[in-house]
Amino acid sequence: MSLTQSVRWTQRNLFIIDQTRLPQEAREIRLDTISDVVDAIKTLKVRGAPAIGITAAYGVLIGLFNSGKAIDEVDLLLRTSRPTAVNLMWALDRMKHVYADMKDKDPDTLYAALEQEAIAIHEADKLACETIGEHLNTLIPQGANILTVCNTGFLATGGIGTAFGGIVSAHRAEKDIHVWVTETRPLLQGARLTAWECLQWGIPTTLITDNMAAMLMQQGRVDCVIAGADRIAVNGDSANKIGTYSLAVLANAHQIPFYIAAPSSTIDPTTLSGKHIPIEERHPDEVRRVRKEAIAPNDVNCYNPAFDVTPAKLISAIITELGIYTEKFKAHFARN
Amino acid sequence: MSLTQSVRWTQRNLFIIDQTRLPQEAREIRLDTISDVVDAIKTLKVRGAPAIGITAAYGVLIGLFNSGKAIDEVDLLLRTSRPTAVNLMWALDRMKHVYADMKDKDPDTLYAALEQEAIAIHEADKLACETIGEHLNTLIPQGANILTVCNTGFLATGGIGTAFGGIVSAHRAEKDIHVWVTETRPLLQGARLTAWECLQWGIPTTLITDNMAAMLMQQGRVDCVIAGADRIAVNGDSANKIGTYSLAVLANAHQIPFYIAAPSSTIDPTTLSGKHIPIEERHPDEVRRVRKEAIAPNDVNCYNPAFDVTPAKLISAIITELGIYTEKFKAHFARN
Repeated sequence: MSLTQSVRWTQRNLFIIDQTRLPQEAREIRLDTISDVVDAIKTLKVRGAPAIGITAAYGVLIGLFNSGKAIDEVDLLLRTSRPTAVNLMWALDRMKHVYADMKDKDPDTLYAALEQEAIAIHEADKLACETIGEHLNTLIPQGANILTVCNTGFLATGGIGTAFGGIVSAHRAEKDIHVWVTETRPLLQGARLTAWECLQWGIPTTLITDNMAAMLMQQGRVDCVIAGADRIAVNGDSANKIGTYSLAVLANAHQIPFYIAAPSSTIDPTTLSGKHIPIEERHPDEVRRVRKEAIAPNDVNCYNPAFDVTPAKLISAIITELGIYTEKFKAHFARN
Repeated sequence: MSLTQSVRWTQRNLFIIDQTRLPQEAREIRLDTISDVVDAIKTLKVRGAPAIGITAAYGVLIGLFNSGKAIDEVDLLLRTSRPTAVNLMWALDRMKHVYADMKDKDPDTLYAALEQEAIAIHEADKLACETIGEHLNTLIPQGANILTVCNTGFLATGGIGTAFGGIVSAHRAEKDIHVWVTETRPLLQGARLTAWECLQWGIPTTLITDNMAAMLMQQGRVDCVIAGADRIAVNGDSANKIGTYSLAVLANAHQIPFYIAAPSSTIDPTTLSGKHIPIEERHPDEVRRVRKEAIAPNDVNCYNPAFDVTPAKLISAIITELGIYTEKFKAHFARN
């Protein structure tokens, strides 16, 4: 692999892979202003809850020092760029905390402290991915057919990935796994990003449309389903890419284990259950079109929720870097 | 509506709407040779089990008299053009029966007899659609939110449609219905065709991606699911567009009625259960691409079954022009 980091910070410059151009083009772009950062998050040039959190952390540096904005404006602009991913709020809280502690120091000291915190967030996520992957691997049988949704690999995180980290870990352990990648309409993160990552790793992969998953389960060709999360409530209800709830219901109906994998920063101690998670609705053209191609009448009404919420009762286990939680989510997570 | 017939026979000429160009362009093309007819069926210029049967019936005339082929060759070419839709086999059986009776007559008499049979198949389907629609309407509550898949309207049949016939019937009865149209990847018959038909009729409609259906059911926003069928076994197991089984499992998990609507010619008395239904697999590029747009790495492996099979136990009722069958499918259908 030439590019293995979705977000890269070097010599005070923030680079991301522009994921909207994948898989045709794997190219880094530099984000020079707070507008660049917010636009990159809103338009999904960078996406995946952990990667959004990391980008926002560096984005605070860009906002304060490149764009010359005040902390409250920088924070608000970043915080409202995507409403569902709680890692974004968590990373911004950490950055604001450092800012509050250091704001009376000279600019170089403030910069260094904020940079150190952003790098720490980034490094911690990289380590969390490895640990999540190892935990998840213990749940993956030899020769497993694993079904996954959206993208949870290095493009979505600071490391090898969350749900995808488990796939990488099982692949490294030579378990002869095979991955069913659901394309993940409307924005096709499965087809464009996860299929591409699988090819980079040399993991045996088959791409399917989202509506084929049930038939594969019916035929006994899926051994487990692994998904990421954008926000996990303290009772274990988990918001993730639209279609995840569908897979959870289908897995449950076919008695197939359904796992959610995410860094512990995805657990929101202030969200008691799934009904309190705000669900981002995106532009109807994402449904009416596939990239530039019109696939429906221009004037047809569309509904475009970006996420859905899977209730804890349908989740066999939630895997974070802290461990594997198979029941009593609330008691465990409330401690975080 | 300017064009309201998917298949039109006039003055010994066979016209179809080229459905691959919809919704951008609603245009008829003339099928002059047996190759034209077979190609139109294979490439889904004409699709929908009833419409395929009707096209094949007229195709026998084209094959024998325009292309000068023998009946067995014409029959084989048409019969193997799509393997799952049993209406195709049923229509060809009827045409062959007439041919066997009339083959020793003069060509004009033979032609007239075959033409009469094809027109009878076409007219009977038109009538069946109206009756199916009326039956189905009795199952649709006032103000219902109806979810449907693929296309089962006039584009798919010789009349107002099968599953869609029920929607038209409820709309005519001023029941204030609203239709959720699932886009139906990979070939997007929902987005391209059903959404377009809904707009033609002025039926309130919202287009969604296939993976959003479960979330709508979770929110209580779906009152029933209606699908067509390409082949129904005598035990009630039903093959239909890929994704139908997924919707049946989801509807069942949310205690929402799930209906299959089709002309009785879709019931195959020689198919005892779903496991005996051949499932057509189509080219992987249909998954890798959306129309002309590449959406995945060119070299990724894909799986592309065109249909899936919903077991009878998940079907609340099967509706044909002969009535509403809610249980004991086998006892009923075995009589046909």
